[in-house]
Amino acid sequence: VLSFVMPLSAHAQQRDSTKLTVADIVTIHSQILNQDRKLYIYTPHTISTPLSRPGPAPYPVMYLLDGEVQIQMVAGLVDYLSNLQAVIPSMIVVGIDNNDYDRERDLTPTHSDRMDPVSKPDTSDTAFTKTSGGGEQFLRFIRDEVMPYVEQHYSTAPFRILSGHSLGGLMSVYCLLNHPEMFNAYIGISPSIWWDEAVVAKQAKGKLKAGAFKNRYLFFSISSEGGEFYQDIATLHSAFRETSASSGLTYRYVHYPAETHGSSPARAEYDALRFLFPKPQQTQ
Amino acid sequence: VLSFVMPLSAHAQQRDSTKLTVADIVTIHSQILNQDRKLYIYTPHTISTPLSRPGPAPYPVMYLLDGEVQIQMVAGLVDYLSNLQAVIPSMIVVGIDNNDYDRERDLTPTHSDRMDPVSKPDTSDTAFTKTSGGGEQFLRFIRDEVMPYVEQHYSTAPFRILSGHSLGGLMSVYCLLNHPEMFNAYIGISPSIWWDEAVVAKQAKGKLKAGAFKNRYLFFSISSEGGEFYQDIATLHSAFRETSASSGLTYRYVHYPAETHGSSPARAEYDALRFLFPKPQQTQ
Repeated sequence: VLSFVMPLSAHAQQRDSTKLTVADIVTIHSQILNQDRKLYIYTPHTISTPLSRPGPAPYPVMYLLDGEVQIQMVAGLVDYLSNLQAVIPSMIVVGIDNNDYDRERDLTPTHSDRMDPVSKPDTSDTAFTKTSGGGEQFLRFIRDEVMPYVEQHYSTAPFRILSGHSLGGLMSVYCLLNHPEMFNAYIGISPSIWWDEAVVAKQAKGKLKAGAFKNRYLFFSISSEGGEFYQDIATLHSAFRETSASSGLTYRYVHYPAETHGSSPARAEYDALRFLFPKPQQTQ
Repeated sequence: VLSFVMPLSAHAQQRDSTKLTVADIVTIHSQILNQDRKLYIYTPHTISTPLSRPGPAPYPVMYLLDGEVQIQMVAGLVDYLSNLQAVIPSMIVVGIDNNDYDRERDLTPTHSDRMDPVSKPDTSDTAFTKTSGGGEQFLRFIRDEVMPYVEQHYSTAPFRILSGHSLGGLMSVYCLLNHPEMFNAYIGISPSIWWDEAVVAKQAKGKLKAGAFKNRYLFFSISSEGGEFYQDIATLHSAFRETSASSGLTYRYVHYPAETHGSSPARAEYDALRFLFPKPQQTQ
């Protein structure tokens, strides 16, 4: 704590100054990706507000894609709802940083040269699509390196959530369909289902089998995005909805017509948490 | 930055560790209240996430009551919506700490012995109602000590917001009616209008005059609270709605039937910000 007195012309005199913290920033070395990767780890104890009252350990863990964009919002929301209001259980949130330009490599399940649903292929060396298709390796990094790190260092309950927005939402839905054992719950906010001619929507048909997603949760949402972005999500939504009774998936779909692609996580992360934990302090 | 290498049985090795910060914690001495008071000051520059891109100064300022309860949520939300998504302008948020047991003194405009709408008067020495009625002095503290401190130390635009929940919401509505010159915008989330036999609702009748609230904004909301809590808010809502065309007040009322008294700020602070800044990056 930095302590000093500062003369002011106004009435108030400053006595001391420190920082409000919400998360640890930890860098781990990934052998799988062959690079250092940054994690933002909020726990019920990393926050420095005085009234925060953590519930009993162990804690469910949310793995949050685009961590550097969403961690401060989601950590603040989770702390308020859990440790201050007991609306949801106390949780850990692990924001995974994109490491600058590795976002497109990590958050795409297949390689594609198209950077939106309608444009022509872009094969220039500078295109963000150039490295695309590293999603499987990125999920291995999460499963074999991030999760063991988190579970070794913190008191974790066996309830894991994967939350992603946009390309991160694409990866969340892809992970549910292809690795349903990795997480208990999946959040896909305005997911880029259009990616690579809607490859994930196409593969869903063969995955939504009887009992395939028993005890699994999916929160799936779209905002005001139109055109193919909307159409590909709507198609996949129909498939999830029509099969949820047989697949066992506990499913929630929300359309936010008043939200933009960028604003929607501020609504959807909240609604997803209330969907996953509908009763105050209900825990698993 | 604490830097170390830690051997792990898992693949990942931790390289370094630091903290994600969202606000300065500043203590000032109040001559008016004759005590030290803590402020949580979020600015577009206090946050340590790497992608945050502050817009140009000067910045509007939100003064947030119950600061120790809401600052991490509101700071995270504002940073996400402004510096990361440019949905609202970059802002400063000043959370005012309640200084432990001074909440009931500071956030009540009159003295009352009743701690809820229906119970009998409680005149015991331990009752939280004992010190109630310090609201006017608390607003003087904000106007003459907090605001000068903030405006001297930060680049502030002449657009001030007062946000409060519960008793804080009562004070926000009271301030609009009695000191409309102090803030441009007022947020009252599930306000305790029932206080002291709904004294604030009663005084509203004489205040809602032609032109009295020109260029002033009010966001007013209630959740699932019922009984007198709801009834007193509904009565005041009718008065605001019926007079808004003549009083000049720009008014928004939202009912959140699915929210509890405690959860509602997580929805309402967001909706209030979108109400005040409806167009991306629109500023005052």
